Amino acid sequence: MDEGSGRSPLVTLTTDFGTRDGYVAQMKAVLLSEGPPGLQVMDLSHDLARQDVMGAALFAEAAYGRFPQGTVHVLVVDPGVGSARHALAVASGGQHFVGPDNGVFGLCLNADAEAFAIDLPRLHRKVSPTFHGRDVFAPAAAMLARGTAPSALGHAVTQTAGLSIPMAQFDALRAVGEVIHIDRFGNCITNLTARALEAFAQSQPLEVSCGQPLGPLRNHYAEVEAGELLALIDSGGRLELALREGSAAVELKLTRGARVTVHRRP
Amino acid sequence: MDEGSGRSPLVTLTTDFGTRDGYVAQMKAVLLSEGPPGLQVMDLSHDLARQDVMGAALFAEAAYGRFPQGTVHVLVVDPGVGSARHALAVASGGQHFVGPDNGVFGLCLNADAEAFAIDLPRLHRKVSPTFHGRDVFAPAAAMLARGTAPSALGHAVTQTAGLSIPMAQFDALRAVGEVIHIDRFGNCITNLTARALEAFAQSQPLEVSCGQPLGPLRNHYAEVEAGELLALIDSGGRLELALREGSAAVELKLTRGARVTVHRRP
Amino acid sequence: MDEGSGRSPLVTLTTDFGTRDGYVAQMKAVLLSEGPPGLQVMDLSHDLARQDVMGAALFAEAAYGRFPQGTVHVLVVDPGVGSARHALAVASGGQHFVGPDNGVFGLCLNADAEAFAIDLPRLHRKVSPTFHGRDVFAPAAAMLARGTAPSALGHAVTQTAGLSIPMAQFDALRAVGEVIHIDRFGNCITNLTARALEAFAQSQPLEVSCGQPLGPLRNHYAEVEAGELLALIDSGGRLELALREGSAAVELKLTRGARVTVHRRP
Repeated sequence: MDEGSGRSPLVTLTTDFGTRDGYVAQMKAVLLSEGPPGLQVMDLSHDLARQDVMGAALFAEAAYGRFPQGTVHVLVVDPGVGSARHALAVASGGQHFVGPDNGVFGLCLNADAEAFAIDLPRLHRKVSPTFHGRDVFAPAAAMLARGTAPSALGHAVTQTAGLSIPMAQFDALRAVGEVIHIDRFGNCITNLTARALEAFAQSQPLEVSCGQPLGPLRNHYAEVEAGELLALIDSGGRLELALREGSAAVELKLTRGARVTVHRRP
Repeated sequence: MDEGSGRSPLVTLTTDFGTRDGYVAQMKAVLLSEGPPGLQVMDLSHDLARQDVMGAALFAEAAYGRFPQGTVHVLVVDPGVGSARHALAVASGGQHFVGPDNGVFGLCLNADAEAFAIDLPRLHRKVSPTFHGRDVFAPAAAMLARGTAPSALGHAVTQTAGLSIPMAQFDALRAVGEVIHIDRFGNCITNLTARALEAFAQSQPLEVSCGQPLGPLRNHYAEVEAGELLALIDSGGRLELALREGSAAVELKLTRGARVTVHRRP
Repeated sequence: MDEGSGRSPLVTLTTDFGTRDGYVAQMKAVLLSEGPPGLQVMDLSHDLARQDVMGAALFAEAAYGRFPQGTVHVLVVDPGVGSARHALAVASGGQHFVGPDNGVFGLCLNADAEAFAIDLPRLHRKVSPTFHGRDVFAPAAAMLARGTAPSALGHAVTQTAGLSIPMAQFDALRAVGEVIHIDRFGNCITNLTARALEAFAQSQPLEVSCGQPLGPLRNHYAEVEAGELLALIDSGGRLELALREGSAAVELKLTRGARVTVHRRP
């Protein structure tokens, strides 16, 4: 138990490993063996799209900030495993983040983030060449959950890998963004955030289009009939194109990069 | 810890959200941030068939009653999200249930159930229009897990949505029911319960048919050879049609509503 | 809490049940109702390949040994459910194992293992004929987690079901093994262990072939380019044939039993 809050120490796990093989199980074994008494290990997802760094970053953006202070988040989507990319331990906003330095944390860190490249000899560990999740990230997370400072895990890094997320464009008449992710229901998530659209709207109602008009920005799926397209702010705070009880991506033949335009209603 | 039992407070989660997207993760974040110290959050399923209220109700019927007193069950299978259906908090049989008022709890509540329509202003919460799981059900469950009475979450409702489950028919000679659910192995679950069949049997052996004779009511899968059909009482207490090491639904070309007949052996 | 370690009692679950149906949920209900206060129930996998005893045994071999002393592992992959096979409770290496006596534990038990056939009348339990996971294995695991000795659950058995894993052959010139498992990424796991290959190598570099030359034994996936084949020791300590960012099984048209040869480099 954390003395201050009475909460148990908490490590969350987010990977693209699936659970059919034993990769996640081995990470849990290390966390429970090396973590503090009372540690709670919480699965968030193990079926992120494989090696999809952007999808992982959006997942982290929407979920991590809502967890209690002191939570340790392990996020392993790692196309570059075995390459020279750093293994990171990051402190940001009162939480800790452990994973590869490839942009997965690109949307969930604050300006105050302090990042450290995990240094295994310093942790007195033998490294398996094939499985960083178990042999690097899990031990580092166990140490953070026990109260070790991230700075004790390695050397400070001043620059971490960014995420090449295209910038939305705003002018007096319209906001132009694009689809950056498609979820398993076929909902299309864009780079237009609720915050930016609110500033653009100047309290006027907004109209959305993507190849074809999608009507006003809606508040609820239920504002349209089954089978109809709509645009709304998703649960992660981004403009989303959806089809009620269906797939907007299929209906509109959308892929990542599809252009989305928002107008103020005249 | 609950003072009386020494058990940690427990919230279970059952949804059709999958875990590829961050919906479940965001619900867990709210539960852990707003729930009591020591709260255990337990996944039951996140891959219920999408928007399948009947399947969800059968899942709840078979599983929920076996959990410890005081457990809070969150069940979100919600084709009507965004419509006018209530969000429910229900006390029944010493447990609590949180989810949409659409029939998902139709098979797991006792006659003593007390239901309340969750009233968000009363909880002093801003509602996301798109994600009731995170913004309504998870906060309500966190409050129940902290010991808040369901009656404090909203106004009492005297009628909740029922589940249109067809009634089995019994006469002197036979019991006639139907397939109400098909599981992922192709097992066909019916509306004939073990309890009703036991009363009908009058201690006689029973024979089952569904288009074709399926033989006597069996106790074990292993009473037939691989590839053979059988009928038995499933782990949830309902008559089930199965094919050992295969799919009865495929073999018999069954869909929901298929008629199933049980005779006393003459 | 365990007095000695300060750790909470821990039960892990590994099955081929999936979570779409309520089987796992019902097992968890029994564990939490009958287990000790503070029990942590940890999912390892519920999507092992269906009825694949070898895959389950390899999963257990790679994962179980890393868990803390005192952990109770429930492993249910059980093609013979309902047959005469025993239900086992095993103590080995400071941990406990509960599951069917069909070889699933064939790779994770020590020479010191003590096995007991679970005897339900002795546990004063009614048995469901259809669901041993809930009615046999979960109650037994709950008792072990509460501190009951395995010997109190049934009668000692001197022989448990083995796993027919072919022996690798070693001579002066080469080691000959075979593919015993293919994971979901198409990686091919063999019966050649790191330990045996280290002894065979006599500090010489090794070359691997399987129908075609696969080059030297590698340390990292990243030593080859995307789309190239390689051989390396996997995270479970076995020789694995892989294709970087692809499926070795598909590329090499491998199935279980495919012959794999290792030479010392001349």
